[in-house]
Amino acid sequence: MSEPGAAGPGPAAIQVSRIMRPDDANIAGNVHGGTILKMIEEAGAIISTRHCNSQAGEPCVAALARVERTDFLSPMCIGEVANVSAEITYTSRHSVEVQVNVMSENILTGAKKLTNKATLWYVPLSLKNVNKVLEVPPMQYTRKEQEDEGKKRYEEQKLDRLETKQRNGDVIFPIINPEPHTVGYSQSSLIHLVGPSDCTLLGFVHGGVTMKLMDEVAGIVAARHCKTNIVTASVDAINFHEKIKKGCVITISGRMTFTSNKSMEIEVFVDADPFVDEPRERYRAVSAFFTYVSLSKEGKPLPVPQLLTETEDEKRRFEEGKGRYLQTKAKRQAQMQQAAQQ
Amino acid sequence: MSEPGAAGPGPAAIQVSRIMRPDDANIAGNVHGGTILKMIEEAGAIISTRHCNSQAGEPCVAALARVERTDFLSPMCIGEVANVSAEITYTSRHSVEVQVNVMSENILTGAKKLTNKATLWYVPLSLKNVNKVLEVPPMQYTRKEQEDEGKKRYEEQKLDRLETKQRNGDVIFPIINPEPHTVGYSQSSLIHLVGPSDCTLLGFVHGGVTMKLMDEVAGIVAARHCKTNIVTASVDAINFHEKIKKGCVITISGRMTFTSNKSMEIEVFVDADPFVDEPRERYRAVSAFFTYVSLSKEGKPLPVPQLLTETEDEKRRFEEGKGRYLQTKAKRQAQMQQAAQQ
Amino acid sequence: MSEPGAAGPGPAAIQVSRIMRPDDANIAGNVHGGTILKMIEEAGAIISTRHCNSQAGEPCVAALARVERTDFLSPMCIGEVANVSAEITYTSRHSVEVQVNVMSENILTGAKKLTNKATLWYVPLSLKNVNKVLEVPPMQYTRKEQEDEGKKRYEEQKLDRLETKQRNGDVIFPIINPEPHTVGYSQSSLIHLVGPSDCTLLGFVHGGVTMKLMDEVAGIVAARHCKTNIVTASVDAINFHEKIKKGCVITISGRMTFTSNKSMEIEVFVDADPFVDEPRERYRAVSAFFTYVSLSKEGKPLPVPQLLTETEDEKRRFEEGKGRYLQTKAKRQAQMQQAAQQ
Repeated sequence: MSEPGAAGPGPAAIQVSRIMRPDDANIAGNVHGGTILKMIEEAGAIISTRHCNSQAGEPCVAALARVERTDFLSPMCIGEVANVSAEITYTSRHSVEVQVNVMSENILTGAKKLTNKATLWYVPLSLKNVNKVLEVPPMQYTRKEQEDEGKKRYEEQKLDRLETKQRNGDVIFPIINPEPHTVGYSQSSLIHLVGPSDCTLLGFVHGGVTMKLMDEVAGIVAARHCKTNIVTASVDAINFHEKIKKGCVITISGRMTFTSNKSMEIEVFVDADPFVDEPRERYRAVSAFFTYVSLSKEGKPLPVPQLLTETEDEKRRFEEGKGRYLQTKAKRQAQMQQAAQQ
Repeated sequence: MSEPGAAGPGPAAIQVSRIMRPDDANIAGNVHGGTILKMIEEAGAIISTRHCNSQAGEPCVAALARVERTDFLSPMCIGEVANVSAEITYTSRHSVEVQVNVMSENILTGAKKLTNKATLWYVPLSLKNVNKVLEVPPMQYTRKEQEDEGKKRYEEQKLDRLETKQRNGDVIFPIINPEPHTVGYSQSSLIHLVGPSDCTLLGFVHGGVTMKLMDEVAGIVAARHCKTNIVTASVDAINFHEKIKKGCVITISGRMTFTSNKSMEIEVFVDADPFVDEPRERYRAVSAFFTYVSLSKEGKPLPVPQLLTETEDEKRRFEEGKGRYLQTKAKRQAQMQQAAQQ
Repeated sequence: MSEPGAAGPGPAAIQVSRIMRPDDANIAGNVHGGTILKMIEEAGAIISTRHCNSQAGEPCVAALARVERTDFLSPMCIGEVANVSAEITYTSRHSVEVQVNVMSENILTGAKKLTNKATLWYVPLSLKNVNKVLEVPPMQYTRKEQEDEGKKRYEEQKLDRLETKQRNGDVIFPIINPEPHTVGYSQSSLIHLVGPSDCTLLGFVHGGVTMKLMDEVAGIVAARHCKTNIVTASVDAINFHEKIKKGCVITISGRMTFTSNKSMEIEVFVDADPFVDEPRERYRAVSAFFTYVSLSKEGKPLPVPQLLTETEDEKRRFEEGKGRYLQTKAKRQAQMQQAAQQ
């Protein structure tokens, strides 16, 4: 992977720029994480669909299968330009890895900042038969190590996907007259009728559209909990197991699972209801964990009110969240030490 | 070429036209009632704000206070042009009545149909002090009867507004594993973070934005109930008692209250949560009844499954809905007889 | 209340009004030229499609073939109403000329200003066979001179279209670590996946959607170059030679070609990539020159940094841009003298 912004897009790279508008941001002027996730996914979908159709054969559309954990390194503001560059970094027989860098650029001062890096996996589905996964044309590596490292990432994500247990049974029930800072107090849900612009050529929802809605719900949960200006800090790896078809109603629900001193973890579920002319029952399409921080007017992280857990399930989920939090913290410290030693 | 502004509507009229896009419609190609309500309200807001600022004095923004009952007379389709024309038809000391006609035009065949007529009431709020209602410049009537009839409509709506009991206490609680065709089975809710493009210059949500969201929820309730293609048939009078500020989270909830053989009545609530930097509690901003019908592929109304009521409250609301249904039916028959006798 | 369709613009005119929202504007509150171009084209598409279907025959959709050079005479702001009125001013056998006026209206003060005038040419394409150009029903002229002047404009644009050489070979390559104020420093590109709401009934991108994206890229180029508040001053004539189909990915690229003391000329290319299910290669669909000016907080034009040209091609394009600039300036002075003499 090239350094952020270093090389320009090669033949297998694309670059997208867009000015951030008022509707892309919250009232404090910080661009929603979901807006950025949607741009990232759109760039990934374009480059991987283009690659998968680059050899003669059955036409196909690349569908998002997985997004690796993504950290939001610095907030972006209204009026700044988001520069999204995507390139293909690995291909397996049936999947494409895309790496995306997002830079925020203040076009008035020229200042540029790395906002986030993301890694996405796409799978080519036949345009004629959406259940048929096609073969991916192999990419050309400039160095042997590139391929080896890519293969390692491929194996790791494959393992992780297998391990992921879908939290299918879990449903979010509303609580009557909840106390402040309990789980029931901030939990929220949203329904969305899937329209034509939400969908790919195959008539299934773009992964980016789903992620934007998930971030929207998670943000509302976080804001309800701490009643301050909040921003997305990170999103855990998301696996897209189930497709969502045009015309479905999707319910996106979020609940807080864990708070550290300065962060909140929110679990988000997406359930699809294919109710028109479809015999199928409601099903869980995606689930993910979002981490939010609360920012002061100067952009400094603020302490957040601690989550009050009441039921056994809530306590268990809090402990699991703590586990994820500590693991991420340890990983980050290890990386920093490694970087310092180099 | 005519001089700019020469041709076209006079000072007391405005015309707005727009091509209907896929995103404006459901998968059967019928334009959402909410899309039309939003266009109607935008035309009304422009013409009444223009009128209220037509005399020297404090600048103001006209805010939607009430929409009279509106029937959707014929469905509009993707690719058709919606022609919305609005004119001021009455002014009281502090309010403006706007009448709006919507015509659908098939620009390929030239066929035009009246889609609906609506009557809206606006109130001028000072740009400097949003709680101050200003005086409306009196309009000029061409005939004395115009003024008298307008005054009659004004008194009627005033009475109706006073009578409206805000259903403040009512909250929609989810039901676990509901049976098909019960109230709990189809009830739905949606949250929306109020963004800058949703708001007027005063920083409060446009009435049309609220109505579009309400229609969205009502449509999902109706579709969940009957699992067919559904369209908005009518909207009962809506009073906008409480303003909603930029940055609020609004929860829009809908539940079915009544079914006749071929129609469904859905009650919709809008609750605002001014959670950032506001000491205020969540409050009920608007509520309304929407009526939907289910259409066959040929556009004919289909029978709808009967609503199963379980609790005492559900039974009471069903009876109240039946009352509204019979009253509307009687009124329509009286009008038809009157028309036949003329 | 008037009968539906009774009052308002006559058969050969249409009016579109809309309140300008925050998302329509830059952070200084000036509405993007692209927003206005899109509204202009929508009005033109409605009126010309309506006219071309006004006689019995094959149904058709009017497709934008050309927009004449357009000057933006005064900036429009958030909260103002854009009043767009369009009328047909000439018909040839296979094309329709539409003239459009845009007025900005401050509904608080009643102040109205002419924002711009535009002339668009549309061609009717059969709804059954998109490659078949149909005949246009002849319009009725009130005076003989109207027809003669229209014919003259028709011949002029026809000549101009033939002369236009598509700059097909030109591609914009990214530059590594460019110096400020060089061409490479400000050049930008954007990709967009063509969705259903971007398209006409024929499934091809609306000209107005393309122009809006072109203005967005040109605006980013201009802002990167001079790092101040910039607004669109004019757009040179644009010819739409090639259609763009739903599902294509379009790449819109812009680079600065010329600077005068107070203006910047930006060349914009639109390339379409019909990458799924199409044997066709990427092709140049449209190209155009946009001129931007930089405005102070008081709305006065500011001096702009001079463009540093490095390569032979850049120097040649700069000289060509200078030629266009001087030509336009001379034409404007001649018009002013003519006006003064009358």
